[in-house]
Amino acid sequence: MDEFSFIDSIKQKYYKQPTLLKGVGDDAAVFRQQNKDIVTSVDTMVENVHFAKYTMSPFHAGYRALAANISDLAAMGAVPAFYLVSIVIPADLSNEDAGSIFSGMESLASLYRMDLIGGDTVSGKELSISITVIGYTEPGRARYRSSARQGDLVFVTGSLGDSQAGFHILANKGEYEEESYFIERHRMPSPRVDFAAKLSGIKRVSLNDISDGLANEVNEIADASQVTIILNEKDLPVSPQYPQFPVDLQHKWKLYGGEDFELVGTVAEDDWESVKEAASNTDTVVTPIGYVAERSLSSKVYLITDNGKIPLYSEGYTHLK
Amino acid sequence: MDEFSFIDSIKQKYYKQPTLLKGVGDDAAVFRQQNKDIVTSVDTMVENVHFAKYTMSPFHAGYRALAANISDLAAMGAVPAFYLVSIVIPADLSNEDAGSIFSGMESLASLYRMDLIGGDTVSGKELSISITVIGYTEPGRARYRSSARQGDLVFVTGSLGDSQAGFHILANKGEYEEESYFIERHRMPSPRVDFAAKLSGIKRVSLNDISDGLANEVNEIADASQVTIILNEKDLPVSPQYPQFPVDLQHKWKLYGGEDFELVGTVAEDDWESVKEAASNTDTVVTPIGYVAERSLSSKVYLITDNGKIPLYSEGYTHLK
Repeated sequence: MDEFSFIDSIKQKYYKQPTLLKGVGDDAAVFRQQNKDIVTSVDTMVENVHFAKYTMSPFHAGYRALAANISDLAAMGAVPAFYLVSIVIPADLSNEDAGSIFSGMESLASLYRMDLIGGDTVSGKELSISITVIGYTEPGRARYRSSARQGDLVFVTGSLGDSQAGFHILANKGEYEEESYFIERHRMPSPRVDFAAKLSGIKRVSLNDISDGLANEVNEIADASQVTIILNEKDLPVSPQYPQFPVDLQHKWKLYGGEDFELVGTVAEDDWESVKEAASNTDTVVTPIGYVAERSLSSKVYLITDNGKIPLYSEGYTHLK
Repeated sequence: MDEFSFIDSIKQKYYKQPTLLKGVGDDAAVFRQQNKDIVTSVDTMVENVHFAKYTMSPFHAGYRALAANISDLAAMGAVPAFYLVSIVIPADLSNEDAGSIFSGMESLASLYRMDLIGGDTVSGKELSISITVIGYTEPGRARYRSSARQGDLVFVTGSLGDSQAGFHILANKGEYEEESYFIERHRMPSPRVDFAAKLSGIKRVSLNDISDGLANEVNEIADASQVTIILNEKDLPVSPQYPQFPVDLQHKWKLYGGEDFELVGTVAEDDWESVKEAASNTDTVVTPIGYVAERSLSSKVYLITDNGKIPLYSEGYTHLK
């Protein structure tokens, strides 16, 4: 199959977004959106850096690559609308597998009525999937890391460390409880789009998605907002079967494990009821895990543990290698 | 230099686009644009597929990668505003060379006051540069390939085949006239943004950029518009020193040579004066090269040569390999 037939094979038969004027098939795509702010981001996944054949099928590689991008939109409070895909295909990847990567993306995209509006297919030595996503927020409602203020509650959605637990199960044969739950959390994470969008009634929310581990993301909020943040270790939410893993791994994954694609954020205490309402309306678990302390030019994050208050440093998340 | 310091080093100190609300530094970029249509496209260049060290410095690789993308916007009649870059960096690429790639992009972007608003830097086996561009047109003024109508004039900007001639000079040592002119046309092509934008007063224009050779692009217009198009070989514009090259190469490059990034389009005869005015206002040479004949479901392109009228087929442009 040549490049043109392949593009034809993945081209949508019809488009869902009412703002789209031109999809795939010209030099560029065109859309018209009034009275919204437009949010866009790009992210690339490279085989054997971000994913590997032994833990991910092509379908899952596509699914997760798009999930990571949609999660960035969720972290801005944006509703996804479009995606563009640039893929480098090595000679040893079959057409069937290349098609499965796009099927994986499409199966997630369809949940959000996202349209694939552009892309590029080129040959190269290693598989790499670069995705650009475009979404919308209500005017002035994009959520920045810099919006945390003294006195805010810190909250997190869902449970932490599950994706790394799933990866551990795939990489280390053994008997585990709820294997398929953890594996699915690794391969097919659910970006928190609906919950984040439901926060749009709240004037000020700081938000970040957990792609590189909680410690890193909370430090980013603290840095951008120039505040100190205090977290309570005992409040960090984990799933019921999480305690089956070794204690040191539990600790590592929930604080530094990447790619859960949950959200961490802060809001004024007065808005906490609205956050809980948004969570309940979208079947999302939301847990308060700390608070924003004083404003500070040398921003810091602390973790209150059984052994006292310790600094929680940002640790560069290293992808599997 | 780690990923974060590298991103810091290429981050703009300030932004130029008044519509931008948030650039690099959060989960995504945010902009607000009222009363325009938004045009977006993505394109990837892989080393040794689309460019090679022996013909392109890192600076030129970056420059040309962005030029190819901006040319897609020009082909839609759009004015460029933003770009996002996802780059896969192999271990043997120095930080200096990686920085030069971004300098090459920046030097072209600054001509259009474009802002770099997002991106991703990942390690991998081979250098690959994926660029997403975003631009604007006046509402309803995006230019499609499907807009050609019977009786239209066909026109082309600039001269044809120069980029391939420049590549030929770089790949084949020898004595050539105007060497630096042809080499610059290959390494630092000028997308026809200003000219295309000045056409916005004309209601209907079909437009395509010549990235894959004139024959291919005109066939795309014929296909999308379901018309037959007739071109006159003697009218195809070439630069003054072009005849120094072997006749068979001249023929090949001007019809099938890619990456001149000139524009080919069609307009009603009544609008031809306006096209010439747009050209003259933007120091662009524009040449009529044929006309749109009858509407036809089995669209065709013909070339009138000294030896009669021959069909001009689309030939899949093959990148250097």
